[in-house]
Amino acid sequence: MDGAQAMIRTLVDAGVDTCFTNPGTSEMHFVAALDHVPGMRGVLALFEGVATGAADGWGRMTGRPAATLLHLGPGLGNGLANLHNARRAGTPMVNIVGDHATYHLRYDAPLNSNIDTVARNVSRWIGRPSTAGELGAITADAVAAAHGPPADVATLILPADVSWSDGAEPAAAHAERAPATVADDAVESVALALRSGEPTVLFLGGGALRRPHLQAAARIAAATGARLMGATFVPRTERGAGIPGVERLAYFAEMAAAQLEGVRHLVLVDVGSPVSFFAYPDKPSDLVPEGCRVQVLAGPGEDSAGALAHLADLVGADPPSAPPPPLPDIASGALTNRSIAAAVAAALPAEAIVSDESATASAEVAAATAGAPRHDYLQLMGGAIGQGLPLATGAAVACPDRPVFALEADGSAMYTIQALWTQAREQLDVTTVIFNNRSYAILNIELARTGAGEGGPKARDLFDLSRPDLDFVRIAEGMGVPAVAVSTTAELTAALSRAAAEPGPHLIDAQVSR
Amino acid sequence: MDGAQAMIRTLVDAGVDTCFTNPGTSEMHFVAALDHVPGMRGVLALFEGVATGAADGWGRMTGRPAATLLHLGPGLGNGLANLHNARRAGTPMVNIVGDHATYHLRYDAPLNSNIDTVARNVSRWIGRPSTAGELGAITADAVAAAHGPPADVATLILPADVSWSDGAEPAAAHAERAPATVADDAVESVALALRSGEPTVLFLGGGALRRPHLQAAARIAAATGARLMGATFVPRTERGAGIPGVERLAYFAEMAAAQLEGVRHLVLVDVGSPVSFFAYPDKPSDLVPEGCRVQVLAGPGEDSAGALAHLADLVGADPPSAPPPPLPDIASGALTNRSIAAAVAAALPAEAIVSDESATASAEVAAATAGAPRHDYLQLMGGAIGQGLPLATGAAVACPDRPVFALEADGSAMYTIQALWTQAREQLDVTTVIFNNRSYAILNIELARTGAGEGGPKARDLFDLSRPDLDFVRIAEGMGVPAVAVSTTAELTAALSRAAAEPGPHLIDAQVSR
Repeated sequence: MDGAQAMIRTLVDAGVDTCFTNPGTSEMHFVAALDHVPGMRGVLALFEGVATGAADGWGRMTGRPAATLLHLGPGLGNGLANLHNARRAGTPMVNIVGDHATYHLRYDAPLNSNIDTVARNVSRWIGRPSTAGELGAITADAVAAAHGPPADVATLILPADVSWSDGAEPAAAHAERAPATVADDAVESVALALRSGEPTVLFLGGGALRRPHLQAAARIAAATGARLMGATFVPRTERGAGIPGVERLAYFAEMAAAQLEGVRHLVLVDVGSPVSFFAYPDKPSDLVPEGCRVQVLAGPGEDSAGALAHLADLVGADPPSAPPPPLPDIASGALTNRSIAAAVAAALPAEAIVSDESATASAEVAAATAGAPRHDYLQLMGGAIGQGLPLATGAAVACPDRPVFALEADGSAMYTIQALWTQAREQLDVTTVIFNNRSYAILNIELARTGAGEGGPKARDLFDLSRPDLDFVRIAEGMGVPAVAVSTTAELTAALSRAAAEPGPHLIDAQVSR
Repeated sequence: MDGAQAMIRTLVDAGVDTCFTNPGTSEMHFVAALDHVPGMRGVLALFEGVATGAADGWGRMTGRPAATLLHLGPGLGNGLANLHNARRAGTPMVNIVGDHATYHLRYDAPLNSNIDTVARNVSRWIGRPSTAGELGAITADAVAAAHGPPADVATLILPADVSWSDGAEPAAAHAERAPATVADDAVESVALALRSGEPTVLFLGGGALRRPHLQAAARIAAATGARLMGATFVPRTERGAGIPGVERLAYFAEMAAAQLEGVRHLVLVDVGSPVSFFAYPDKPSDLVPEGCRVQVLAGPGEDSAGALAHLADLVGADPPSAPPPPLPDIASGALTNRSIAAAVAAALPAEAIVSDESATASAEVAAATAGAPRHDYLQLMGGAIGQGLPLATGAAVACPDRPVFALEADGSAMYTIQALWTQAREQLDVTTVIFNNRSYAILNIELARTGAGEGGPKARDLFDLSRPDLDFVRIAEGMGVPAVAVSTTAELTAALSRAAAEPGPHLIDAQVSR
């Protein structure tokens, strides 16, 4: 059996059955093996950043690693930004990077480059088999490293001759490791803080905004008066009617500081201590207020659900039944971030998946959808824009029976717009709503916040996407996705209904009023 | 003066007056400084791979470095593939990567990652100033490193607080270094080989396919019978009527081996010894035939024009006047790679710039355009597809009075399709011709060549771009570029005429007959 076949068999046996890819010549034996080994689905992307972002979405929704298959250093580079996001999300992923044959490296052919250095930027685990004989075992190691816990991106660099040589055997999957149980002492120490009566925040991030976590957290809050707060960015939040909601820490540091003012105990659950996203002149990076004690209830790779349940048993009470917040009214007329968010919230069916990369509209989107039916809400984790469309694509591959919504800023959408083609090719149920304000609006805000002033004409011009306007309808249709532009809430609501009624992907270019 | 202003002043004083960028929050002070320091043009790209590819095109056409301005590790990652290509082209470039403020790094905020490791993949020189006071000098060092010789990509990692802090001063540009003169011994040793009467090839690459080099090489060939051969990929070739042409080493190793069979002396001019682009089972990587002696006339950073002139003086004779090869006939009817190439060749005006990423059509394009009026011909150097449209964009910014043609494969075009928007925004005279064969055609060939067989349905499906077809007309129009689809040579010729008659960019979707 050649290396590629043994590798795919090992992956499939370990539950890695989907590969997002844009392959090249050095990956041809892996590609050929897809027809010889059953069970692996290959999903083609027109650009590697789509493949890695889709693998992130797939991993967030299944809890298992997808594979990617990338073409040498440049293919890894093209996928890097969304690998960075995946790593920050703690998504399990097995990243396979084809390389030249081992004996070909010394000739420094044109595509040669130092793959390992790039891989280090985005992978905790890196493997590079040098013979087909060891490929099975190293592949099983890669899957285990991706699973963790904590989950992470594992990168396996696969020389072409290791892939094509015979003498390989599949390896059995490692036993899955359970997350580490949090020690009783740590839970009791947090219980002490909660009983102090001093202002306490239970700060939830990472994998701790799922339903069991939130239900335990709500019991804790009901008994102790602690505030529940979610991190600004969370890989996957279960939310909507019937699931306890949490306040979110704001993106802008001055707003976050106001939220945290007076807090004396900050309890971290699967998340780091809050810091400013960027540094700004004369503003603190560390958002923990003076005099506040920070305690860790559960760190990455620890059983945060178990720790919260334990804590709730120590201090908890049944939470009052809280009706879901009402859906906001949809203001008629020209579109604003708020009215788009309200219209989308009203259109969200139960069990929807929302990929939110609406940038300056995100706060409105989060608020408007809080009372929508139950849904999963996926956020940009690493700040590298161009995640939203690929993430929605992968989530839709993972969950073919659930409607997926990609809520996208115009500037971010253009980074990985090629994702639309994969949505059309796979006939995925993704509805993309572009919040089209014809600018990098966030940068107009950030320019002033960094103390760089209001900006002259050359600076402002670099944030302007209206010269020329981007016509997302034509762009989407050019990739096989039906699309419509809307400029009023009535048109938007009608477009959302049509998208829901028809199978396959749709795009709605929502023109924000200037 | 703040760091950003001192930096831009240093760059402009050193001749770096164009910056291709997609900036973010950490780059805001650089952006603001564009309005305070005269002389720097900022060109916005919707994706960093467009910015780095455009800087490559700009550098190839001017011989001077452009700057890029990228947003932390992910922005560098997005630009990596075309930085790889630029590095392989030996293009001077100053790559500026914004980073978090120095004191913010330890908080490991979401966009934090190890920028230096990624930079190593694509830069010989890396600098990271830690104070505004040293920024001017380090910027001057970066420009000098980019110039070489040999020219290369220099990456300067710019912490946000170094950019916004006061106390910076611009630094004077370093004196430009001339390329090293090749020693007389080396030239005379090559002369000896040429006089041996044994089969000799003068193998030209890098910067050695410019007019002075080719004229000297033609004199050498006329006197000695040596064959002139160009490398498969060359950053910039001056060619067309009146300029001596050269045979090109073929891409596929078996064809290249046939070309080199029987050669006893291979003389390298600004290029490495020929090697196979990829490894294939049971085929040699090294293309030098047995019994052939390899000699270096001039290496990278050496004065190859001077060495060739010296050699021509030693052994040369006036070359016979060779009429340019005739332009091929344009076969009427449905489009093939050959007929598209012939129609483009007939439409090429004098002083055109051709960015060729037509992949499986490249051999036809090169042959058809050999007898066209004088033009510059730019090739993909590092094998990382997605270079052609950005390269054309940067070349057009550099040479506003010269018509630019981007000859693009459909699959490659989709990698960095966002370049079209920058062409529209800057109203660049670029005519893009898509060789649209609805597939990654090269991979259908490579699958069999790697010994992976014919491929089953799952493998073949990963090379298929017809599910759905890409409509490049809508995609281009969506980014503000007028476009037309053509399926006959008559339609193509008419479309080329219209594109020439109107200012600004155009796209022609040339549908290759199935």
